[in-house]
Amino acid sequence: MGSLNRHQKQSQLRGLLISIEGIDGAGKSTIAGQLERKFIAEGYPVQLVREPGGTIISERIRELLLDPGNQQIAAKTEALLYAAARAQLVAEVIQPNLEAGQLVICDRYTDSTLAYQGGGRGIDLEWLRDLNRLATGGVRPEVTLLLDLDPQIGRNRRSTRQGPGRPGEDRLEAESEAFYHRVRETYLQVAREEPQRLRVMDASKPLPEVVEEAWEILAQSLNL
Amino acid sequence: MGSLNRHQKQSQLRGLLISIEGIDGAGKSTIAGQLERKFIAEGYPVQLVREPGGTIISERIRELLLDPGNQQIAAKTEALLYAAARAQLVAEVIQPNLEAGQLVICDRYTDSTLAYQGGGRGIDLEWLRDLNRLATGGVRPEVTLLLDLDPQIGRNRRSTRQGPGRPGEDRLEAESEAFYHRVRETYLQVAREEPQRLRVMDASKPLPEVVEEAWEILAQSLNL
Repeated sequence: MGSLNRHQKQSQLRGLLISIEGIDGAGKSTIAGQLERKFIAEGYPVQLVREPGGTIISERIRELLLDPGNQQIAAKTEALLYAAARAQLVAEVIQPNLEAGQLVICDRYTDSTLAYQGGGRGIDLEWLRDLNRLATGGVRPEVTLLLDLDPQIGRNRRSTRQGPGRPGEDRLEAESEAFYHRVRETYLQVAREEPQRLRVMDASKPLPEVVEEAWEILAQSLNL
Repeated sequence: MGSLNRHQKQSQLRGLLISIEGIDGAGKSTIAGQLERKFIAEGYPVQLVREPGGTIISERIRELLLDPGNQQIAAKTEALLYAAARAQLVAEVIQPNLEAGQLVICDRYTDSTLAYQGGGRGIDLEWLRDLNRLATGGVRPEVTLLLDLDPQIGRNRRSTRQGPGRPGEDRLEAESEAFYHRVRETYLQVAREEPQRLRVMDASKPLPEVVEEAWEILAQSLNL
């Protein structure tokens, strides 16, 4: 990959968006961070963003969504709040970076809405696809890495993350195991529907292996 | 109107939603409150709701929207936040009250989105109509009173409202006069497109006259 100069790498990647998806505990944030470092080391201009969040407004929406006191949020309200945070992220960060020739890695994007609000909360997937389209203005990922994991393993991993700075589960993490099973199944359903875009990975493997495999998938898909 | 008993009045009004629209300063809240009292005095079961707000979550979204520090909210983010507040209000208050046979009066509803985010911010009206449909699940007003007012008069009225408890303009009220002219024009455009539902009223008249006229329109439209 080192044979191209920075300018060539930039123009080669123009408009490229990658999303990383999976249930909580699948390792999305860690893997996204390692991929970011790998791209930087290879000389590719990259911007990592996290959903919900990544902008001042989106962080405030995120606080509202994750507050365990807000149990009364209706399912569609929740979906619309995620969509609002996403619209801001697209307008303020993703779109300008794509236009500037950056590679953008999203830690969660539109498939999270389908999996969590559709599979998890039972909202109709077509309603959610319409909402995703409105929120993103059609800005879609080129490749999506789906870190597939048994929810029981995800739960065990999450419980070991807790410590003094992370005293309890937030509103979403307190969901039942059945909820996470439905989330996983919906992710896999979307992957069956869009096999070209979604690449299913076994996230129960040791982290370095998953990172290596993710890198290979991206290098091949993006023709690096 | 006094010839029906309460039960008859309740079943007669099943599923009836009224919205009150207009630019800031047109007198929506005052008129909505007076209509509520009139309906109660006549023995009709009525519920008054205010947008954005009316539920705990919606009030928190309202705070986020009206905070003058949040100048960086993108137009579509703003629209999606209003939609989120509205979805919660529909799920938690409007739908259950309509199903219980209540008359529901909304101080602002979907036409505010078209006027402010469409006319004011320049978002495509079709995008906004799709969003309104997603947020409300198709719960539409039977009658909409559009309190039409010259923005200059609205601004003068708003400035006299300020006092110790109302020290400054919020984020939306600080918009330019041109903004309010576009908002007014879009309201009138929607009224031309849906003359059966939207009833345009001259809100520059003295308040008691406007209330009396509004009551007559509703009594006739709802066949009271």
